[in-house]
Amino acid sequence: MRFDEAYSGNVFIGSHPNYDESQVVIYGMPMDWTVSYRPGSRFGPGQIRKVSIGLEEYSPYLDREMSEVKYFDAGDIPLPFGNAQRSLDMIEEYIDKLLEEGKFPLGMGGEHLVSWPVIKAMYKKYPNLAIIHMDAHTDLRTEYEGEPLSHSTPIRKAADLIGPKNIYSFGIRSGMKEEFEWAKENGMHIAKFEVLEPLKKVLPSLSGRPVYVTIDIDVLDPAHAPGTGTVDAGGITSKELLASIHEIANSDVQVVGCDLVEVAPIYDHSEQTANTASKLIREMMLGWCP
Amino acid sequence: MRFDEAYSGNVFIGSHPNYDESQVVIYGMPMDWTVSYRPGSRFGPGQIRKVSIGLEEYSPYLDREMSEVKYFDAGDIPLPFGNAQRSLDMIEEYIDKLLEEGKFPLGMGGEHLVSWPVIKAMYKKYPNLAIIHMDAHTDLRTEYEGEPLSHSTPIRKAADLIGPKNIYSFGIRSGMKEEFEWAKENGMHIAKFEVLEPLKKVLPSLSGRPVYVTIDIDVLDPAHAPGTGTVDAGGITSKELLASIHEIANSDVQVVGCDLVEVAPIYDHSEQTANTASKLIREMMLGWCP
Amino acid sequence: MRFDEAYSGNVFIGSHPNYDESQVVIYGMPMDWTVSYRPGSRFGPGQIRKVSIGLEEYSPYLDREMSEVKYFDAGDIPLPFGNAQRSLDMIEEYIDKLLEEGKFPLGMGGEHLVSWPVIKAMYKKYPNLAIIHMDAHTDLRTEYEGEPLSHSTPIRKAADLIGPKNIYSFGIRSGMKEEFEWAKENGMHIAKFEVLEPLKKVLPSLSGRPVYVTIDIDVLDPAHAPGTGTVDAGGITSKELLASIHEIANSDVQVVGCDLVEVAPIYDHSEQTANTASKLIREMMLGWCP
Amino acid sequence: MRFDEAYSGNVFIGSHPNYDESQVVIYGMPMDWTVSYRPGSRFGPGQIRKVSIGLEEYSPYLDREMSEVKYFDAGDIPLPFGNAQRSLDMIEEYIDKLLEEGKFPLGMGGEHLVSWPVIKAMYKKYPNLAIIHMDAHTDLRTEYEGEPLSHSTPIRKAADLIGPKNIYSFGIRSGMKEEFEWAKENGMHIAKFEVLEPLKKVLPSLSGRPVYVTIDIDVLDPAHAPGTGTVDAGGITSKELLASIHEIANSDVQVVGCDLVEVAPIYDHSEQTANTASKLIREMMLGWCP
Amino acid sequence: MRFDEAYSGNVFIGSHPNYDESQVVIYGMPMDWTVSYRPGSRFGPGQIRKVSIGLEEYSPYLDREMSEVKYFDAGDIPLPFGNAQRSLDMIEEYIDKLLEEGKFPLGMGGEHLVSWPVIKAMYKKYPNLAIIHMDAHTDLRTEYEGEPLSHSTPIRKAADLIGPKNIYSFGIRSGMKEEFEWAKENGMHIAKFEVLEPLKKVLPSLSGRPVYVTIDIDVLDPAHAPGTGTVDAGGITSKELLASIHEIANSDVQVVGCDLVEVAPIYDHSEQTANTASKLIREMMLGWCP
Amino acid sequence: MRFDEAYSGNVFIGSHPNYDESQVVIYGMPMDWTVSYRPGSRFGPGQIRKVSIGLEEYSPYLDREMSEVKYFDAGDIPLPFGNAQRSLDMIEEYIDKLLEEGKFPLGMGGEHLVSWPVIKAMYKKYPNLAIIHMDAHTDLRTEYEGEPLSHSTPIRKAADLIGPKNIYSFGIRSGMKEEFEWAKENGMHIAKFEVLEPLKKVLPSLSGRPVYVTIDIDVLDPAHAPGTGTVDAGGITSKELLASIHEIANSDVQVVGCDLVEVAPIYDHSEQTANTASKLIREMMLGWCP
Repeated sequence: MRFDEAYSGNVFIGSHPNYDESQVVIYGMPMDWTVSYRPGSRFGPGQIRKVSIGLEEYSPYLDREMSEVKYFDAGDIPLPFGNAQRSLDMIEEYIDKLLEEGKFPLGMGGEHLVSWPVIKAMYKKYPNLAIIHMDAHTDLRTEYEGEPLSHSTPIRKAADLIGPKNIYSFGIRSGMKEEFEWAKENGMHIAKFEVLEPLKKVLPSLSGRPVYVTIDIDVLDPAHAPGTGTVDAGGITSKELLASIHEIANSDVQVVGCDLVEVAPIYDHSEQTANTASKLIREMMLGWCP
Repeated sequence: MRFDEAYSGNVFIGSHPNYDESQVVIYGMPMDWTVSYRPGSRFGPGQIRKVSIGLEEYSPYLDREMSEVKYFDAGDIPLPFGNAQRSLDMIEEYIDKLLEEGKFPLGMGGEHLVSWPVIKAMYKKYPNLAIIHMDAHTDLRTEYEGEPLSHSTPIRKAADLIGPKNIYSFGIRSGMKEEFEWAKENGMHIAKFEVLEPLKKVLPSLSGRPVYVTIDIDVLDPAHAPGTGTVDAGGITSKELLASIHEIANSDVQVVGCDLVEVAPIYDHSEQTANTASKLIREMMLGWCP
Repeated sequence: MRFDEAYSGNVFIGSHPNYDESQVVIYGMPMDWTVSYRPGSRFGPGQIRKVSIGLEEYSPYLDREMSEVKYFDAGDIPLPFGNAQRSLDMIEEYIDKLLEEGKFPLGMGGEHLVSWPVIKAMYKKYPNLAIIHMDAHTDLRTEYEGEPLSHSTPIRKAADLIGPKNIYSFGIRSGMKEEFEWAKENGMHIAKFEVLEPLKKVLPSLSGRPVYVTIDIDVLDPAHAPGTGTVDAGGITSKELLASIHEIANSDVQVVGCDLVEVAPIYDHSEQTANTASKLIREMMLGWCP
Repeated sequence: MRFDEAYSGNVFIGSHPNYDESQVVIYGMPMDWTVSYRPGSRFGPGQIRKVSIGLEEYSPYLDREMSEVKYFDAGDIPLPFGNAQRSLDMIEEYIDKLLEEGKFPLGMGGEHLVSWPVIKAMYKKYPNLAIIHMDAHTDLRTEYEGEPLSHSTPIRKAADLIGPKNIYSFGIRSGMKEEFEWAKENGMHIAKFEVLEPLKKVLPSLSGRPVYVTIDIDVLDPAHAPGTGTVDAGGITSKELLASIHEIANSDVQVVGCDLVEVAPIYDHSEQTANTASKLIREMMLGWCP
Repeated sequence: MRFDEAYSGNVFIGSHPNYDESQVVIYGMPMDWTVSYRPGSRFGPGQIRKVSIGLEEYSPYLDREMSEVKYFDAGDIPLPFGNAQRSLDMIEEYIDKLLEEGKFPLGMGGEHLVSWPVIKAMYKKYPNLAIIHMDAHTDLRTEYEGEPLSHSTPIRKAADLIGPKNIYSFGIRSGMKEEFEWAKENGMHIAKFEVLEPLKKVLPSLSGRPVYVTIDIDVLDPAHAPGTGTVDAGGITSKELLASIHEIANSDVQVVGCDLVEVAPIYDHSEQTANTASKLIREMMLGWCP
Repeated sequence: MRFDEAYSGNVFIGSHPNYDESQVVIYGMPMDWTVSYRPGSRFGPGQIRKVSIGLEEYSPYLDREMSEVKYFDAGDIPLPFGNAQRSLDMIEEYIDKLLEEGKFPLGMGGEHLVSWPVIKAMYKKYPNLAIIHMDAHTDLRTEYEGEPLSHSTPIRKAADLIGPKNIYSFGIRSGMKEEFEWAKENGMHIAKFEVLEPLKKVLPSLSGRPVYVTIDIDVLDPAHAPGTGTVDAGGITSKELLASIHEIANSDVQVVGCDLVEVAPIYDHSEQTANTASKLIREMMLGWCP
């Protein structure tokens, strides 16, 4: 019986009790206020933690156990409801601090816009940064119905900051014609519909570079991830996404941070999406963290 | 067969085809970006319209048919996702216009903050305005975790504008101690837990005054309205809420506008809350509109 | 603000406001009264329209935008509850009129029996008609428990009318032994289990012919379409179904009308099936309409 | 272990194995093809049986055990999908036979139209029949959108047959103005909104008469019966409905048959409505059967 | 930002960080392996904690804030899946320790059998113990289908231990005839159907005595608590249950421990039952703890 | 009309009425008390029976009809809630009797631990028994949190009894490192991630041997089987599982018994998993029974 310390039941399974000794920090970014369709990804991080209790701590894919990586679940960043700009500022400041203290950031969304301040912070530290982006959607808009802060814009903002040529998108199957054209004209890499095969082709060219990987859970087919804001038929399977994570793990790319976003538990009636997300996070951590 | 006009299937049942000839305008305010707990009320107006098809057009309570009131369903105000201030400005401008053109505004939320700009507009036209507020929550905060624009604040904003003595809250069973104390110290009327009996006592004193009625669906017990953002046990029944609407209808109060807010369809698995809301709107319209 | 016209919120996204100027007409056939298992497809068309708001208006598969096709959403045909024969008569008359006025009919079910009167009408105009049928079920019964009007019979009725040799079924994985035998004996084409590969083989032989395509959403695996009346494991993926639609689009077949049937929202808890259906309709329209 | 007889797992709990020795017959009427709103009551009888396993076999209200009544669950009448007229004919013939053999009929719907052929059969045997009808809806239409066979019509048909003065409706809170007027003009008894108190007043006048009781589960408030086709706020509680059943049990009325209709499991996500229905049936049987 | 300590997100809102300084200990007993009907109450404590974030920390009923009581959420007792006897032993040992250290135990179930070892421990410390039991069910069986360890037996076990005359049950509406008879013959107090009124009569006779209060959430009507293992129509409202808690709070009874059991989140689709449970726990704590 | 025999509505479709004349016996093992994560598989057999009504009785894969096999659905074994050891003893005794009487056992779980007593009984009759095991999980633990009777242990128990070399596991993607190592060291066959291809390689070596096949439904990807206790992303499709069943059917293996376990209806919101399970059982029976 443990009466000598505060209860900490809802952490990602196997989380190390001490921040200082940990190399990886898992954190939630519970923001969904700019989504144009179905909200609810604010509850994503909490749900992923909750179902992580069902995970085995060993990966038979990577032959590695979670005890081999010291990670600390720092909880959710307390973002102010409905204030997008202040939320983004808080996230950026948070990541700045993590990077300053030498931690590997592993974020859980929340809507995809949360990746934008993380990328800003990463870029300050890694001027040679490349981004691997797996998603159903281009996310290349400059604004959505007049709002420049929208979940449809993060990759465009990132492209404007680090250069479109340093962004590699995979699995894209939805977007405006203008977005696809802009990407093409600006030398951004977009692999339509597929992830694994084009990834295999791209990875060698990224050898040795620092890479931030951002995964929107809706890159999966709705069959594999019904619990997300904007489902879109024709996606990849969870088997393919796992293989893609392992492909990166086995490459010479230097992953320096990553996130998994857009899990929306209220549309995830059998907890299928959250369970899948928790397994993906295990594989991301075991495959990409030193 | 009707090939000669655009299909308009999802309007509140019985909506008049012509705005100009209508005395009442029904409109949706699909905003939920400042809610601190469960989002989704952005889909409330659409769902209420959809299930309104199950309504009979006659009220045996009031012995009146919907054909006796000309109302026009104007659809949802196209609010910008995630931008609270701009959304509120758009609502206020919208209501200004409605009032200018002599319409009776009947709004559907959306989170409760949407009532704030409506009240501002109403007050410009009716300086003697009183507010009848039915809700589980005080909504008297000045800010929520640093945000002055929050769904916990609309009644406080209204009280600051038109004077706390002109606000009559009913059914309140949740709030901070400070909120209850502020109300007491400032002469605002709060009927805790109950609606019908205290309403009967208050109505005579409001005789002849212009009154705006704002109903948060969570004044109902969760048994009667599970589909809302913040459920709170110990509420009233739908029977009591109907009787309260009829009590106002039979009083000498002059209702000059009203709203029903916080229906959140994603937590309303059997459409129970939306069906109830559509019936409440029918009774509000038949009971309160000339 | 749009006060000058009736609200028409729930139309298929991008619907043209004018019937006369449109080349394609989208319509719902909200009938489910003869289904032997799980009802509810009567709500299919409404739900598909509702979620169509989440669609991008551009297809990266076909590099075509919805603005390039003029289509008019005519709403649901007001079918009489529980009267199968009268419902079928109304549908046939409706399609007769559409064809007479030169429109391309794109129907949304409703149970599969609704395709039968559509095919009757098509055949009157196109005596050389062939049918491409994608489905989990043969639908070749002559009656179901004594009822000749049943959702298990439409393809048999079509075969009896236009000749079994002009029917091409794909993806079939369920039916009575007698149905499969009848098909074989009568020269009807049935591709069991698969769609894309057998379709590639068949299409050249249909070159130039007028073809009506009827898709039962249950041709998809239940993982991809849980929200339908009769799910049946072992189906195809939405990726394969999209590819099949594109295969037809890129062939020399002349599609003269089409439908998508059996979406049942009450079994579609995360709106996954309806979302998929709305995307399929976009691809059918962009791929098959001139 | 019981290998010597066919498994009969899904019967109403405590059903007697032998038809001939039983005084009461429970049967399902799985028909929902004329409902104008939400279908699914075809699955009502099966679901009520399934959850009846959770019932105690003793009623502390009536101090009686189910073993004191011999009842036989005869399963569902195999009604033909989508054929309303033939379904009604089969039900009437079925009840004729039950009555001929001296059984007390206790039916489970299915939509409310199924009560119509039962009442026809009862009236043949009991020319002095009165009907107690508990429902949210008048069900007094002569047709619905042109269809004379509709779930909105059974009480009107019954009134036309046995005389409106012999019909006593309770709890009615929805209907067309014309229906209420017709009832009034023709001397039919309608107690609006309430059940228990008006029932207490009516029962003495029915003393000794043969009475058929038909209960539409939607007489309950949606809070108590979300799983039904047409929910309508402002209804009674399950406590009041139980008390009403007991009131009849303790009166001098001679109940000669009864039914409980409109349980629709697909809208009953926690099986609440079906559980309540199974308890109501226990109380109806223990209270009304000799 | 809080990087210096382990994240403890899922505790009952407002939990004190230090066990030693706390007077009340909240703990979960996540056991459901002996339930005869619907399992899942093992997840009750976690869900109640999760939704407690929606609670206001002030009770307008009792005019008291949660900050006035120091309570420590100790998490769930790690009970061994499927081993009832060992689970009960662990709970008893756990409570022994809590009582030894002068804590007020406030337990969350789990199935009702968990109350049995708690009562055993309480009785060791308080030989004059009385029990107030609110429940739909008698729970007076000696065994269930041969198993003496069953969720149908805890109150019988308690009666055998502390004497049936010291047990006061309220709201009972389900049980075997034998159970009611045993209670009567042995002088146990059972108030059928009602809670508040009989409680008012009983409380004076318990004045000054140490009392353990055990509440089965199914004492509420299914409308108010659909998310539980065995729902039973005809129960009380959450308003009445709240009033009953307050009645005890305002009496001279000395509550020395309490629990709330049988919340089953998988049947609680809109989190209604868990939200109600979290409010009940707040009121129990603010009303009953010194 | 069938008044002459007890109603037996909820049997697996097409079940033969007579045990003695049947060669196959289908039975349920409704036990879930040792599961460590999500319970509810106790309701699996009942739900599979219920939805089996939607099955066609012909397999177009095997060109065989269910009428060609005489099978008797014997219902559920009445296992005592919460007593694992006694439950396992009852199952073993049950299977002993079935085998003694020459029946082919086809079991439906329940949790996977139920396979353990079946295998014990099979091994007594077939000392040369081999086991084909399809599952996401190794199930090779010796205990779970101190409990030797756990749903994580059945395959280890079987391996200890019949020898690890006689166990062939397929589709495994989850387990502790120690489990995989133990399997390797002891010559047990584990095919990670895949089923069909490794099965093709293994089957020739099992030619002529008596084989018991145990399928945990979670070998399917969560997209194909959301309704199970422990979902795990990256699984196979239902198409692949069907093909694997047919591969065994077409081999020279002598299947002498089989089961399908871990269907948990409360997480199966559209009945998708249960429908798939009922089809798998049809194919297992038609493919494997003489």
